[in-house]
Amino acid sequence: MQAIVKRKRQPEAEITEVDLPNIEGRQILVETKMASICGTDVHIWDWNEWAQNRIRTVPLTMGHEFAGKVVEIGEDVTSLQVGDMVSAETHIADGTCYQCRTDRMHICRNMKILGVDTDGVFAEYAILPEENAWKNSLELDSVIASIQEPLGNAVQTALPRDHIEDIVGKSVAVLGCGPIGLMAIAVLDEIGAGRIFATGGGRNKVRMELAKKMGADLVLNAREEGGNIIKTLRDATDGNGVDVVLEMSGAPSAVRQAFEILTPGGRVSLLGLFDKPVEFDLNNSVIFKAATVYGISGRRMFQTWYQVKGLLSSPTFKSKISQIITHRIPIRDVAEGMKAIHSRQAGKVVLEPKWN
Amino acid sequence: MQAIVKRKRQPEAEITEVDLPNIEGRQILVETKMASICGTDVHIWDWNEWAQNRIRTVPLTMGHEFAGKVVEIGEDVTSLQVGDMVSAETHIADGTCYQCRTDRMHICRNMKILGVDTDGVFAEYAILPEENAWKNSLELDSVIASIQEPLGNAVQTALPRDHIEDIVGKSVAVLGCGPIGLMAIAVLDEIGAGRIFATGGGRNKVRMELAKKMGADLVLNAREEGGNIIKTLRDATDGNGVDVVLEMSGAPSAVRQAFEILTPGGRVSLLGLFDKPVEFDLNNSVIFKAATVYGISGRRMFQTWYQVKGLLSSPTFKSKISQIITHRIPIRDVAEGMKAIHSRQAGKVVLEPKWN
Amino acid sequence: MQAIVKRKRQPEAEITEVDLPNIEGRQILVETKMASICGTDVHIWDWNEWAQNRIRTVPLTMGHEFAGKVVEIGEDVTSLQVGDMVSAETHIADGTCYQCRTDRMHICRNMKILGVDTDGVFAEYAILPEENAWKNSLELDSVIASIQEPLGNAVQTALPRDHIEDIVGKSVAVLGCGPIGLMAIAVLDEIGAGRIFATGGGRNKVRMELAKKMGADLVLNAREEGGNIIKTLRDATDGNGVDVVLEMSGAPSAVRQAFEILTPGGRVSLLGLFDKPVEFDLNNSVIFKAATVYGISGRRMFQTWYQVKGLLSSPTFKSKISQIITHRIPIRDVAEGMKAIHSRQAGKVVLEPKWN
Amino acid sequence: MQAIVKRKRQPEAEITEVDLPNIEGRQILVETKMASICGTDVHIWDWNEWAQNRIRTVPLTMGHEFAGKVVEIGEDVTSLQVGDMVSAETHIADGTCYQCRTDRMHICRNMKILGVDTDGVFAEYAILPEENAWKNSLELDSVIASIQEPLGNAVQTALPRDHIEDIVGKSVAVLGCGPIGLMAIAVLDEIGAGRIFATGGGRNKVRMELAKKMGADLVLNAREEGGNIIKTLRDATDGNGVDVVLEMSGAPSAVRQAFEILTPGGRVSLLGLFDKPVEFDLNNSVIFKAATVYGISGRRMFQTWYQVKGLLSSPTFKSKISQIITHRIPIRDVAEGMKAIHSRQAGKVVLEPKWN
Repeated sequence: MQAIVKRKRQPEAEITEVDLPNIEGRQILVETKMASICGTDVHIWDWNEWAQNRIRTVPLTMGHEFAGKVVEIGEDVTSLQVGDMVSAETHIADGTCYQCRTDRMHICRNMKILGVDTDGVFAEYAILPEENAWKNSLELDSVIASIQEPLGNAVQTALPRDHIEDIVGKSVAVLGCGPIGLMAIAVLDEIGAGRIFATGGGRNKVRMELAKKMGADLVLNAREEGGNIIKTLRDATDGNGVDVVLEMSGAPSAVRQAFEILTPGGRVSLLGLFDKPVEFDLNNSVIFKAATVYGISGRRMFQTWYQVKGLLSSPTFKSKISQIITHRIPIRDVAEGMKAIHSRQAGKVVLEPKWN
Repeated sequence: MQAIVKRKRQPEAEITEVDLPNIEGRQILVETKMASICGTDVHIWDWNEWAQNRIRTVPLTMGHEFAGKVVEIGEDVTSLQVGDMVSAETHIADGTCYQCRTDRMHICRNMKILGVDTDGVFAEYAILPEENAWKNSLELDSVIASIQEPLGNAVQTALPRDHIEDIVGKSVAVLGCGPIGLMAIAVLDEIGAGRIFATGGGRNKVRMELAKKMGADLVLNAREEGGNIIKTLRDATDGNGVDVVLEMSGAPSAVRQAFEILTPGGRVSLLGLFDKPVEFDLNNSVIFKAATVYGISGRRMFQTWYQVKGLLSSPTFKSKISQIITHRIPIRDVAEGMKAIHSRQAGKVVLEPKWN
Repeated sequence: MQAIVKRKRQPEAEITEVDLPNIEGRQILVETKMASICGTDVHIWDWNEWAQNRIRTVPLTMGHEFAGKVVEIGEDVTSLQVGDMVSAETHIADGTCYQCRTDRMHICRNMKILGVDTDGVFAEYAILPEENAWKNSLELDSVIASIQEPLGNAVQTALPRDHIEDIVGKSVAVLGCGPIGLMAIAVLDEIGAGRIFATGGGRNKVRMELAKKMGADLVLNAREEGGNIIKTLRDATDGNGVDVVLEMSGAPSAVRQAFEILTPGGRVSLLGLFDKPVEFDLNNSVIFKAATVYGISGRRMFQTWYQVKGLLSSPTFKSKISQIITHRIPIRDVAEGMKAIHSRQAGKVVLEPKWN
Repeated sequence: MQAIVKRKRQPEAEITEVDLPNIEGRQILVETKMASICGTDVHIWDWNEWAQNRIRTVPLTMGHEFAGKVVEIGEDVTSLQVGDMVSAETHIADGTCYQCRTDRMHICRNMKILGVDTDGVFAEYAILPEENAWKNSLELDSVIASIQEPLGNAVQTALPRDHIEDIVGKSVAVLGCGPIGLMAIAVLDEIGAGRIFATGGGRNKVRMELAKKMGADLVLNAREEGGNIIKTLRDATDGNGVDVVLEMSGAPSAVRQAFEILTPGGRVSLLGLFDKPVEFDLNNSVIFKAATVYGISGRRMFQTWYQVKGLLSSPTFKSKISQIITHRIPIRDVAEGMKAIHSRQAGKVVLEPKWN
């Protein structure tokens, strides 16, 4: 079968012929119907420092966001059958470590990640453990189905634990309008946030316009507004500051801003990754503010998937999310997709299984 | 000034002249701009058994749901000024009891209730303690402003504590389509419930149609469907049962149904009051189901008010809620309002301050 | 090997020779070092109505509470090795149902229970799925190790979710002093409850004395005190009522009492099972009280096991728990153990693997 | 009456005669029976940079930790009477700001602090608003009564919100063994922490020994152990890392350590204040670790007071806490008390009302 394979420890990857995998036990074989490019795939494609350290073995079939059709099931599989449509939860957990056994499977100590530690889904067929398969409704469009995992990340950032009272009717700022930031805005709007503020780097007009469409009440250009942002958001919240900040940019200036605009006793979720250590006034940012800070990594398995499913049952929400997909291209043109993402003029890029 | 006063311990009340009240300390004087009839007012008007036991002193000016304009403030008032528009949180808490001092002021041990224990708002002017005044935006229509308190009850039933992960993307059933049940449906729709099911007694077509308009995906006639409801809701939830049930009917059959349709580990909020004790299979309803049950009384002060304010910032939501108000009549016709509610063909009835 | 086997659908069971089981995949073979009798075992032994309905197939090897040594592991086992000491989480979950995938594995929809649905541990050797094995410290005495599962139930009743602020420094009443009730008292004392009240049926002096030893500040004889209990507990809590009630008796009078002694906004955990439906004043018990009620079934996997492990690291706590074990007898005398439990003069009965 | 008064904006303070204050409305007059020195008092005494910026008006009577007897009550006081023994919650909240109205009164936007913004308790008599008085049991020793406020801080650091499942049976590290750190160890031991680790600067042998007495399983000398601490704590937790870290030192090295020793998905509470901004690897410390971080400021009003009261009902706990009080001196020797604290050889210093 055809697959996008990183053969050497260097940039880019090849479209090449590989063996059709054999399945056993609780594994399933899935025919890829649609795939989607994640930031992680871009890092691996670019072979940046992170990828060089993180990728242990090549050759490696890339990709983990997808939707496909079950074409074969292992002898111990009980919850799926041939013909089912599925997507993949990328995190393959061991099920027995401390984290797995205390409802934190998404941060398993012996985690393997699809398309990073094991062969991924940018291929005609992919193997999934039954435990990692998420059964889609047959009516769900495969394009939307292929981006449920990052949508789950957006949900996890908005709702990191079992309490979101701090969202309903409250003011929320989303710092950073990349694809997951945009998804988060749509999620916040759908789950009853009172006012949604968004900030973006400003170079990417496409994304700033999308932020508005996703439901942001106010979209601020971080580059142009600079320090005014703090005053603007205070004024917009009766001087209280915002109740919740979702930091999705990875910009050191944004994380400092996050705490300045926060109301005392408010909450910050950190999803964006930073290039280097950040200097931080813990006294005024966190301690005197009695702030709560959540680090966001992955998404709860499978609480967030059920939430995504429920949210997607709203046609308005689904239609909004669709707008984040700016590129739909044949998988053979994956290099074009990478280029579009680098240009920062793209939202989400999905890949159709057209190999020839 | 004019007021609707219960003078004698018997049904109905008089529209009569009373003295304009004097204020002091942290009190404010408010000119009533709009009032709304609550079920409690109906009980007092009817002078039913509950009212006979509950009302300690007459004469009593009735009413507690309202919106008005501050016309005078006491010398110790700091957070309000003349000209402000306010509504009232009805529960006057003592601030020093065990419940007040542990974030449960809404169930204060020495609670007084406006229009029940103290003179209420069905009058040209009303006194409020500063602590009970909720400042409205000047732009908020007084009709909507006057029904924020029951809307807070709907929010409290949906979100009884600081976690509502069980709503976002989840399936929720609302049993009973009275005004607060209808409001709850609108709230659930606004805060991202995946699927909303509603059941109503069936005699009241107006309410069943309103349930649909509020956002219910499926409205079932409890009278006609009977036992089928359980099967219907199981089928509609992939056999899992619903995640959350809001019991807002006070019907013994509904409370039993609530637990039958509930998914294991799910949650039930009980708001509807029952005419008498209910027989209950605790083993299968609650224990084996690992269910969580919340009794709902009042609404958190003032968490729910901020949530209501935030939700009302959505024009769609506000417009939906407006539809629940089926009658807007002069306050001098309060007896007509009571009649409309008794007929069960009314949603919410609001009273304009037209006394002559 | 020898085993206690229910061969026929009738009372009692036989000690008999059965085949040594074969293991595969993720299974392990464990040599029983100590077992303990649970109330469920008594029901199956007695062949009461519940057991007749619940037990699907015979012959069935009984028992699920135990400690043993791993003597063989399947080829896919990664987290255990031969020589490890283990106990069993009895609930064998499917891992893919809605409940399993939303952190509620302990109420899996397709649950199988060891010694109920599959052959149990009252045998020389027992099979466990790796997922259900709990690795014990080599220093942990096998007697204590064998009763960790019911101890987990006690923890789950005290701490049904991720918040127990209602325990630390607060007043808690435990209604019913059976083995799990006694364990709960010890747990409450260990986790900082302010005052612990216990009530017992009164016929069992042994248990009432144990309640005192476990850390109850006040032990009341439900039979003799009757209605005075409510007054006594109100007086003992400055008139506030108790913050938390753990209902562990299954007595209808106790469940009504539970809500009468509860402070408004307090919490009730229901563990005890009732012989029949209970009549219940929902208005005053739950709704006006703004009470929270948790049904307790099983124990969270494996959060409660880690908690039990941590609690047992305190020598005082471990020594207290040991006192609940009133009988330690050879497994060949299991019939004597059943008799002792029926007499209500026993705490916990453990079985040593002495077959001949 | 006599009082310790900062008359000029410079170091130290005078013992001097001032007028007996007049009370009105909801105020009470309290005769000081015992006071205690807080770190804040030391800053004000020293007149360090923080104090120079924070103190708005002199003359100012110092002090806020105390126990005393009510000798007069204002005409609107309802919950107290002459002869009651009280302590003070130092935070005087306005009751109407956003934070006060959403169960976060301890971080009121218009907070005034006793002995900082208003005249304090290092005097023969002090004024308290009724809302800030905490009624002590008549049996409670005034020495213990006078340190309930910092004890409440320790509780708040351990239990910042309504969920502490992460304490019961879990491993907890306390970084820093000042008075509140020591109190936190005692609290953790009392509320069922599985294993308690403590680290201290090492110069203060008194405190390191106290840490052991408070219940720490392992006390590490941060100075001598250095980087070994991380390895030691990993080994002591089966390689998992600790579940909870309470940072109570304000040392930049400690805060970095806090996150290194933390298990993925664990929790850090930050109480210690830092001299300057800290450089922070947010990716590995917080985000990939899916950590939760709480800033701790004050203590919840009055949830923590009830908890403290309940904990102090255990004689063992009370006796442990007493050991933290290393100095009991006449208030006229307050300068000696300040010296003892500067020496770092003191635990808590209490002041008896001996003025002459």
